[in-house]
Amino acid sequence: MSRKILRSRVLTFVDDPARIDEAASYRYFEDGAVTIEDGLVVAVGDYNPAAGVEVIDHRPHLIMPGFIDTHLHYVQMQVIASYAANLLEWLNTYTFVEEQRFGQQGHAGAIATAFFDELIRNGTTTAAAYCSVHKQSAEAFFAEASRRNMRMIGGKVMMDRGAPEALTDTAQSGYDESRALIAEWHGKGRNLYAISPRFALTSSPEQLEASATLMREHPDCYMQTHVSENEQEIEEARRLYPKASDYLGIYEDFGLLGRKSLMGHSIHLSHREAKVMAETGAVAVFCPTSNLFLGSGLFDYERLRKDGVNIGIATDIGGGTSTSMLRTLDEAYKVLQLRRQRLTPLAAFYRITLGNARALELEDRIGSIAPGREADLVVLDSSATPHMALRRERIDSLADELFLLQTLGDDRAIREVYVAGEPAKSTMIV
Amino acid sequence: MSRKILRSRVLTFVDDPARIDEAASYRYFEDGAVTIEDGLVVAVGDYNPAAGVEVIDHRPHLIMPGFIDTHLHYVQMQVIASYAANLLEWLNTYTFVEEQRFGQQGHAGAIATAFFDELIRNGTTTAAAYCSVHKQSAEAFFAEASRRNMRMIGGKVMMDRGAPEALTDTAQSGYDESRALIAEWHGKGRNLYAISPRFALTSSPEQLEASATLMREHPDCYMQTHVSENEQEIEEARRLYPKASDYLGIYEDFGLLGRKSLMGHSIHLSHREAKVMAETGAVAVFCPTSNLFLGSGLFDYERLRKDGVNIGIATDIGGGTSTSMLRTLDEAYKVLQLRRQRLTPLAAFYRITLGNARALELEDRIGSIAPGREADLVVLDSSATPHMALRRERIDSLADELFLLQTLGDDRAIREVYVAGEPAKSTMIV
Repeated sequence: MSRKILRSRVLTFVDDPARIDEAASYRYFEDGAVTIEDGLVVAVGDYNPAAGVEVIDHRPHLIMPGFIDTHLHYVQMQVIASYAANLLEWLNTYTFVEEQRFGQQGHAGAIATAFFDELIRNGTTTAAAYCSVHKQSAEAFFAEASRRNMRMIGGKVMMDRGAPEALTDTAQSGYDESRALIAEWHGKGRNLYAISPRFALTSSPEQLEASATLMREHPDCYMQTHVSENEQEIEEARRLYPKASDYLGIYEDFGLLGRKSLMGHSIHLSHREAKVMAETGAVAVFCPTSNLFLGSGLFDYERLRKDGVNIGIATDIGGGTSTSMLRTLDEAYKVLQLRRQRLTPLAAFYRITLGNARALELEDRIGSIAPGREADLVVLDSSATPHMALRRERIDSLADELFLLQTLGDDRAIREVYVAGEPAKSTMIV
Repeated sequence: MSRKILRSRVLTFVDDPARIDEAASYRYFEDGAVTIEDGLVVAVGDYNPAAGVEVIDHRPHLIMPGFIDTHLHYVQMQVIASYAANLLEWLNTYTFVEEQRFGQQGHAGAIATAFFDELIRNGTTTAAAYCSVHKQSAEAFFAEASRRNMRMIGGKVMMDRGAPEALTDTAQSGYDESRALIAEWHGKGRNLYAISPRFALTSSPEQLEASATLMREHPDCYMQTHVSENEQEIEEARRLYPKASDYLGIYEDFGLLGRKSLMGHSIHLSHREAKVMAETGAVAVFCPTSNLFLGSGLFDYERLRKDGVNIGIATDIGGGTSTSMLRTLDEAYKVLQLRRQRLTPLAAFYRITLGNARALELEDRIGSIAPGREADLVVLDSSATPHMALRRERIDSLADELFLLQTLGDDRAIREVYVAGEPAKSTMIV
């Protein structure tokens, strides 16, 4: 019998704390139980002893849905912490050099293993990842995701210009390889595919057209790209596509915007662009550690929210500086503070669980703890370090505990991770 | 015989990498040796076997001077990560409540122990700390510093208005207690005293006058206070002292500015204020994690440097979000990125060692590794976590290694700490 019960404090969201009464936005069980069977949650509620069912006692820790990261580059695990003045310098000096290594035999597999280890270490159970231009980098990614039975989204990047020759495909080969990868991996196990034209600077009109064709042929795949991260980038995009209304207009003109379109960064959007984002349902993906590290700018969370734009939050490894969604929330809070905007602790943890699941249209599968949901869970320890334990003594509300976790927490606060009901952190080979 | 040799890679600065040729600003020994005797460095250079001297082999790690933190509040260890919109809300809602606990028997001693443990864990061997208004909080601080033989600066805060009654002294009692503490602790062992009027909002003209008297009577003591952190605070300071030219002018008028004056934050300084800072030699203390967390603003590093202002860098616990000077450098870098200013990795590590020693006028005692300096050292491990180790594989320059340490490092990267020549981290009772 595969049924088991995880006993401890349990927190899960049912809606956005910023949209409804905050107290009604979540369910919290002080002595709670999550019953798991065959990789799914079958029940959640107060703990009651049940004869013959294995109980794993995680008290006094906090069980939550596994964290979701809506934008990162797994091929940049060794690019993180590269010293550059801005996005374009960083891309040309480090990233476009590093990604060439994924053409070498064996490299993608080794990095994929390290990458998934790092996700698990940090409590991230789902991520939307860019691979390199090499088909084999996506194959290594999905092979590793499959081996671990993780709900992962990925795609081979398409670039047919504006990058070193060793890193470019063509509109045709990018289309063909993406199509082959979709056929091989999309919907296989828990894998999902993201059609991935890197951004307007590295894709010709023909490649954006081919991307749109792929989207029409595979409407249940994602489309991920970058928009409006950096001011030089915006200028260059407009220079390359002079007929477009604005940067977002480039993607709009090719029909690339929809509810499954993940638009990394979306920092400097005009009123028109925000309106188009809202109308098409495209997701503005906020990458705080990256935006600070590259000096890209401050995401306008409150304005986009009020404009009705779907929002995701992400690490953006390797422009971002941490794989941890806790560290990401800390810096998201700081970015918003500089804008005189607030992200409450409950809203913050909504964002990295149910909020990001909604951004990915996967809220019926992941992001909350409810019967029928996939059993991807984290167990959080808010006393994980001596300073956290000291601070914890003075905390008596759930919101304050969450704020402590996001402000002082890192991978050490991730006590255990369950992927499809199976423990993944404590069983990791180190 | 107390003589011993630490063998490993050794890095120490001789000047500011931003002021002279960067390559001439530091000494680096690939197979280096630091010879220590009676708490002092007696030699540094290439390693040569010496008969009969104990050798502690720290290879392949990096030995540097212990880190120096020029502004924090040890009594706010349990305030860190408190949710507030801005400085004044944060002070009134959390800090002024928490600091009252230091009037209770035994509390100051317990927190002082935890605080010094946390410093050591993070490689900080010297800090300039605010205690609470209670004399006993300063006594507990210096007693613990003495027990550990650490080079520490501290002072009882003076506040005679604008705070709960339980947290206020008077101009006279603040003067008397500070004087008694100076007599008891300043220059005793490695302790140094800082006359500590909190800031203009909580000190009457009489108290600022008494502070100036203390400074004249004890010219080798420090003076630490806050200035120009938050816009509401600036308005309130100007309302309370309408005759002053500006916020800094308040302290200037009372004669509180000099080379031993540590001015926390100094974010929104006018041209006149920066000029006065430069002329008096007062130190502008940059507190990046705090400035972001409280949304106070972006320190104008490059402008102040060009204006000839002395600069320190600090955690500002508990408005700051980390006791780690590595985490502090990461966020300093990010603040500067938003201002389109650069802090090179070498300049960054200069800042937290020799730079901060100079800010404290202690460069003849700490902040570098040279004969006659006090043997306060850190041993840094740039492969301390799996992600750091993975990134480390791709690094071949010292500057890139330092950048990795500041971007991904935390207390885990502090392999060992020496305080006056004795190991302090590995021997800590956990």
